[in-house]
Amino acid sequence: MFRPEIKVIDCTVRDGGLMNKWQFDDAFVGKVYRALNEAGVDYMEIGYLSSERAFSRAEVGPWKFCAEDDVQRVTGGAKDRIKLSAMADIGRIDHDDIPLKADSSLDMIRVACYVHQMDAAIDLAHHCIDKGYETTINLMAVSTVKPRELEEALDDLAQSRVPVIYLVDSFGAFYSEDIDILAKKYFAALPGKTIGIHAHNNQQLAFANTIAGIIAGINYLDGTLYGIGRGAGNCPLELLISFLKNPKFKVRPLIEAIEEQILPWQEKIDWGYFIPYMVTGTMNEHPRAAMAHMESDRKNKVTEFFDQMTRPA
Amino acid sequence: MFRPEIKVIDCTVRDGGLMNKWQFDDAFVGKVYRALNEAGVDYMEIGYLSSERAFSRAEVGPWKFCAEDDVQRVTGGAKDRIKLSAMADIGRIDHDDIPLKADSSLDMIRVACYVHQMDAAIDLAHHCIDKGYETTINLMAVSTVKPRELEEALDDLAQSRVPVIYLVDSFGAFYSEDIDILAKKYFAALPGKTIGIHAHNNQQLAFANTIAGIIAGINYLDGTLYGIGRGAGNCPLELLISFLKNPKFKVRPLIEAIEEQILPWQEKIDWGYFIPYMVTGTMNEHPRAAMAHMESDRKNKVTEFFDQMTRPA
Repeated sequence: MFRPEIKVIDCTVRDGGLMNKWQFDDAFVGKVYRALNEAGVDYMEIGYLSSERAFSRAEVGPWKFCAEDDVQRVTGGAKDRIKLSAMADIGRIDHDDIPLKADSSLDMIRVACYVHQMDAAIDLAHHCIDKGYETTINLMAVSTVKPRELEEALDDLAQSRVPVIYLVDSFGAFYSEDIDILAKKYFAALPGKTIGIHAHNNQQLAFANTIAGIIAGINYLDGTLYGIGRGAGNCPLELLISFLKNPKFKVRPLIEAIEEQILPWQEKIDWGYFIPYMVTGTMNEHPRAAMAHMESDRKNKVTEFFDQMTRPA
Repeated sequence: MFRPEIKVIDCTVRDGGLMNKWQFDDAFVGKVYRALNEAGVDYMEIGYLSSERAFSRAEVGPWKFCAEDDVQRVTGGAKDRIKLSAMADIGRIDHDDIPLKADSSLDMIRVACYVHQMDAAIDLAHHCIDKGYETTINLMAVSTVKPRELEEALDDLAQSRVPVIYLVDSFGAFYSEDIDILAKKYFAALPGKTIGIHAHNNQQLAFANTIAGIIAGINYLDGTLYGIGRGAGNCPLELLISFLKNPKFKVRPLIEAIEEQILPWQEKIDWGYFIPYMVTGTMNEHPRAAMAHMESDRKNKVTEFFDQMTRPA
C-alpha cells in the first residue's frame, strides 16, 4: 500500500544547476516541467531564489533567481499543475526581494542553511510563511554537525512554525543505518513536524538511503532526473518513482525527458559516481576538492587525488 | 568491530569478462591480481572454468578457461597470495577436465546454476570438493524462482556437503528488504552453512544490498573494481572495502588499479547505470535485451527501449 503523505520533490534544475551555473535553456526547463507534471511528481524545484545584487546575470543563468517572468515563460502560467519550489540560501536573498505568494508562481520556498545559520534560517522561513508560502528548512551537511549543536538546532526548529524539516546528506557520507538513527532523532526532537530527505550519491547510496528514510517515516523525498546534481549527484528520480507504489506516478515521461534533455548534458558535465566523489564521500568531506579535480585536466588521475586527500597534514 | 568471518571475493575478471568475452590482457589481470593482494581482498575470481570443447579460443579470451599455465603466468606462481577462484557453469565443464587441487593454482570453484539445474550443480560441487577445492553453489536469478521451487532447492542444498551457498540477484531487481527476507529464509533452511551475496547494480542498489546482506549475517561478499560486470555491473569493490572495518583492507591499491586498468575499458564497454539496465532491473527481467539495445546504434533511444519492454504482449 502506498503512503499518501509521501511527496516527491524534483530538484533537477536547482541541484543540477550547481554543475552548470543554472545555464539550462527554456527547452530544458520546459521539458522537465511537463514531464514532471505528467509523471505525477508533487513539486518541481525550479531553482534558487536570490537577490539580483547577490549574483551577476552575466555569470549565472535565470534559475539562480527564479524571476516571475522567467518562471511564467516556461510553465505557461498553467493553473492545473505541479507545485513549484525554489531554494533560498541564507545571505543571498533579502526579505524585501521575496514577492507575496499572491504575486508569485512559486508555492514553496525551501530555506537551506548550515547549523550556525539556524536563527537566520528560522527568521527567513517565518517571513516566507507570513508571505503565504509553504516552507521547509533544509539543514545541510548534518554529517559534520556535532551532537550538541544538532540537539540545539532541532530544539530551535521544534519551537519554530516551520512545518517541514529536511535531513540533508550534503557530502554523500551516510550509510542507511545512519539515516535510520538520524531520522529517529529528528522525529523525537520534532513532534508534529514532517521530515524530508535529500541524499547525495557519492557512495551510490542516495536511492538506498532515501528508501531507508521512507522506512523510517520520512515523507518528503528529493530526487533528480538521472541523478543530475552537484558532484556525485542525487537520488535518481526515475528509480524513486519506480519504487513508490502510488498509482498516480508514471515513469515513462521521466525516461523521455532524460533521453531528450539530460543525456545531452552528460557530454558536457560530469555528475555521478566517479572516484574523486567517492573519496570525499567516504571521508565525509565537502565535494569541492573533488569537483576541482574533475574540472582539471587530471580528472582520471584518481590515485593522485586520493593521495592529496589522505596525506597527513 | 569487524567480523573476521567476512570474506571478500573480487569478480572483476570473471563478471567483467561477460562484457568483453574475457579479452583482458596479461597486464590487466596481473595488475588486478597484485592490487587485490595488496588491498587484503580474500579471493580473486579469475574467470570461468570451461572445457576447451565448450567454447572456441578464437572467440573468447583465456579467462573463459583458466588453464593452469595462463593462471601461473599472471600470478607468477607466488605462494603467499590471495586465494584464486573460478566459476563453473553447468554443462560447460566436464568432470574429467577439472584438475586435482594439487595440480591447480585455483583454491575455490564456484558452481553457478539456475534452479532447475540444482541436482547437476550439487553433483559438480561434490566432485570439486572431492578433488580438494573449496566450493560454493551460486543459485542465480533467485528473484524469478517460485517459492515452492526455492524451498525444494534449499532443502537439496541443506542435505549437500557444499558449505557456502550464494544469494544471487542476477537481474538487479531486489530492494534491501528483499535481501533481508531472503537471507532469513536461506539461514533458516541451511543450518550450519555460510551464505554469500552477489548483487547487480541495475537500480544502484548493489552496494546497499550487500550491506543489507552483511547486516543479515551474510559473510561471503562479491564485488568488482569500479563495479565492472554484466549490464549495470556489480557492487563496487572500492566502496565495499571502504565500508568494512577490518584493518587488513586497503583501498588505495584498488584505486590505483581502477586508474591504470579499469578507466581505459570504460571507453570501450558500457557497464554501469544506464536506463535500459534500470528498466530490466525494475521489471525483474534478464538484462539481455538491454545489453542488445546498448550495443546497437540506438543506445540513447531509451524511451523506445522502455516502450519495447512494456508493450502489452
